Amino acid sequence: MIQFIDLRANKDSDIFNKLASRNQIEYGDIQDRVSDIVNNVKKNGDNAVFEYTALFDKVELTSDNLKVSPDEIEKAYGKVGKELIEVIKKARNNIAKFHEKQLEKSWFTTGEDGVILGQLYNPIEVVGIYTPGGTAAYPSSVLMNAVPAKVAGVKRIVMVTPPGGTDGINPAILVAANEAGVDEIYKIGGAQAIAALAFGTESIPKVDKIVGPGNIYVALAKRMVYGYCDIDMIAGPSEIMVVADETANPKYAAADMLSQAEHDALASAILVTTSEKITEEVKRELEIQLNKLPRKEIAEKSLKDFGAIILVDDIDSAVDVVNRIAPEHLELCVSEPFSLISYIKNAGAIFLGNYSSEPLGDYYAGPNHVLPTSGTARFFSPLNVSEFMKKSSIISYSKKALQQVKDDVIKFAEAEGLKAHANAIRVRFE
Amino acid sequence: MIQFIDLRANKDSDIFNKLASRNQIEYGDIQDRVSDIVNNVKKNGDNAVFEYTALFDKVELTSDNLKVSPDEIEKAYGKVGKELIEVIKKARNNIAKFHEKQLEKSWFTTGEDGVILGQLYNPIEVVGIYTPGGTAAYPSSVLMNAVPAKVAGVKRIVMVTPPGGTDGINPAILVAANEAGVDEIYKIGGAQAIAALAFGTESIPKVDKIVGPGNIYVALAKRMVYGYCDIDMIAGPSEIMVVADETANPKYAAADMLSQAEHDALASAILVTTSEKITEEVKRELEIQLNKLPRKEIAEKSLKDFGAIILVDDIDSAVDVVNRIAPEHLELCVSEPFSLISYIKNAGAIFLGNYSSEPLGDYYAGPNHVLPTSGTARFFSPLNVSEFMKKSSIISYSKKALQQVKDDVIKFAEAEGLKAHANAIRVRFE
Repeated sequence: MIQFIDLRANKDSDIFNKLASRNQIEYGDIQDRVSDIVNNVKKNGDNAVFEYTALFDKVELTSDNLKVSPDEIEKAYGKVGKELIEVIKKARNNIAKFHEKQLEKSWFTTGEDGVILGQLYNPIEVVGIYTPGGTAAYPSSVLMNAVPAKVAGVKRIVMVTPPGGTDGINPAILVAANEAGVDEIYKIGGAQAIAALAFGTESIPKVDKIVGPGNIYVALAKRMVYGYCDIDMIAGPSEIMVVADETANPKYAAADMLSQAEHDALASAILVTTSEKITEEVKRELEIQLNKLPRKEIAEKSLKDFGAIILVDDIDSAVDVVNRIAPEHLELCVSEPFSLISYIKNAGAIFLGNYSSEPLGDYYAGPNHVLPTSGTARFFSPLNVSEFMKKSSIISYSKKALQQVKDDVIKFAEAEGLKAHANAIRVRFE
Repeated sequence: MIQFIDLRANKDSDIFNKLASRNQIEYGDIQDRVSDIVNNVKKNGDNAVFEYTALFDKVELTSDNLKVSPDEIEKAYGKVGKELIEVIKKARNNIAKFHEKQLEKSWFTTGEDGVILGQLYNPIEVVGIYTPGGTAAYPSSVLMNAVPAKVAGVKRIVMVTPPGGTDGINPAILVAANEAGVDEIYKIGGAQAIAALAFGTESIPKVDKIVGPGNIYVALAKRMVYGYCDIDMIAGPSEIMVVADETANPKYAAADMLSQAEHDALASAILVTTSEKITEEVKRELEIQLNKLPRKEIAEKSLKDFGAIILVDDIDSAVDVVNRIAPEHLELCVSEPFSLISYIKNAGAIFLGNYSSEPLGDYYAGPNHVLPTSGTARFFSPLNVSEFMKKSSIISYSKKALQQVKDDVIKFAEAEGLKAHANAIRVRFE
């Protein structure tokens, strides 16, 4: 049901390659289809978008019914239970509170002779958020993508989500969007929605950045338009790594592993432990708890294909495994978890202690649940406020300051064969 | 020689579309060739790299002569004049001093019942820097790419640059690399070098991020490997926008415009001014100074195709043009330039006053010269230390803290149909 790997005494394992095999560069036919869709929308705007919505979503859109109305939002509140609305509001507040701490200040530094150098921060002006429809319609995702944008001061937050057929859009999505401060919602999805946001159409505003998860069509479309606007990371399957010593609770560890495995057959749940007893007890707990899950089949496949229970000699070796795999979610279920923090180099989100259950981070604690997957924690970060801001450098030199350095700048420019660069300095002292 | 545009009284202009036309999504054949190269290197490692180096660079490489030796670096110092070495060192120090101010601190926040949330910063571990060869071999580029990585604490900085035929690698490149703290330099270029860095080969280490400018093959290869490692922005042609009122010096403004126009026939130099007199004087100065330039042909084509002198009603209108075009370099040659700073929303680097000549920023002042082009200042920033660091979220809840929120988290998880998520919380209170 789950692979057991003994990494003690320097043995190696194919688990590292197996996890990496979930990545792909080429998508053949799908890439070509996405190209066609993106180019068509770029060229034909609304008409292309309506064409694809009719084809893929079986919904007839016009510029009149494309946008979610205030009335539809009010109706959505009516359909979602009061308790859930309260939870969404509280989660939103926690997320905003944490992300406010990420806000950065413009700054400057002064130097001799009147030199001023600095860095000016501005929010990105218009942001588009993609929210998938159907069973992957997660109001928590809406919060996690939109709230940091709002905190950053983004002026206009535009959401796109598939029209949803006869049932319409999941009302909890609309409530979450409204609570998060989304300004407009358009009922379009797929690669056509991404293209519409990137280039703008008659009805859809052009945005400066697109964030939000989606299927392979959405992901490839995002990659195609990158440069026309910014995009976030392309999310891969969920992952959790639980590092445990003998103080861990096997019931809790198994439950947290299953919470990721239930997402996707490609999800990865891995236990890394120094205790043989824990390996046995977690395995037993996985079997017991798995049977009670509605999403049992998915979780089972995930554990079988990409799950593992890894036994290591000591905590140092466990940390090596963490840094090598660079997991999306890392739980440290050890005595003194904080003592490991300075050794953890690559992980999206780190949960410390037996009560920091990973789903707490998915829904409520505040830090973002949009996290680097597939080993990209080596170079990517959780979605954060800086992703919705950009910097400009500031340079101010007086005549005297420029005079002090003019010979150096001229020399450097001439060494690079750029005469007009050198002249621009010279001309100020003729 | 340069287009004159009257934007007074709300006239519009095709200059905005013309500038945008320099972008492209599709590169047809070139994209296919790059795909082949990248896939070949991914599969065949060193052998593929040597094959392409023989084919494109006409140089026979082996794993023995692939890496620049300490001896070659020492020889390079001998070939570069002492003065230039001193200038490179001083520039390096200025760049390091500015970028050190960008370093961010790990932080945490505490809450009720023992809650700790936080953000942990770590440098990216291994970074690859691409440095073009031939005439585009700029030691200033080496500094601007490598120094922020060093300041960030990147453990291993690897540079790749084409072998350079009989003349070898430009010695100033090697000196700049050494001064900046580059750890290893490999004599490979093109798409094959990008692929080698992204996947690693027998001789070339796998990196977590690739930065540095390059031709279209390099740019497309970077885009292909994005996700396997991180990449920086894909640099477009240079741009400068000079905003001037009657206090500007037309000789200086023209010189600065030419300093960008000389880079590339696709470069863009634009003057936006409230003063008719300035439009005439700058035009005259452009003609006079252009004739003295070795790179006259390039600059002339740039001014003709993508240059402009724009007359506006007032400074507010000038600022609107700035924010609409989002220039890479912006010069504010007006009385009280600092008063405009809060209105500038989109610009890569802002130079204030008549003595803050743009080449000062290219070479010496400290802020980075790797800047967002082609309107991407709407969402991208100058290359900076944060580009070489990544964050991890920290979440620590006590049992009591989790108890306070458990019902909310369970409710949210169940609303999303994720039972195992809800169980992971429940199991801790059974």
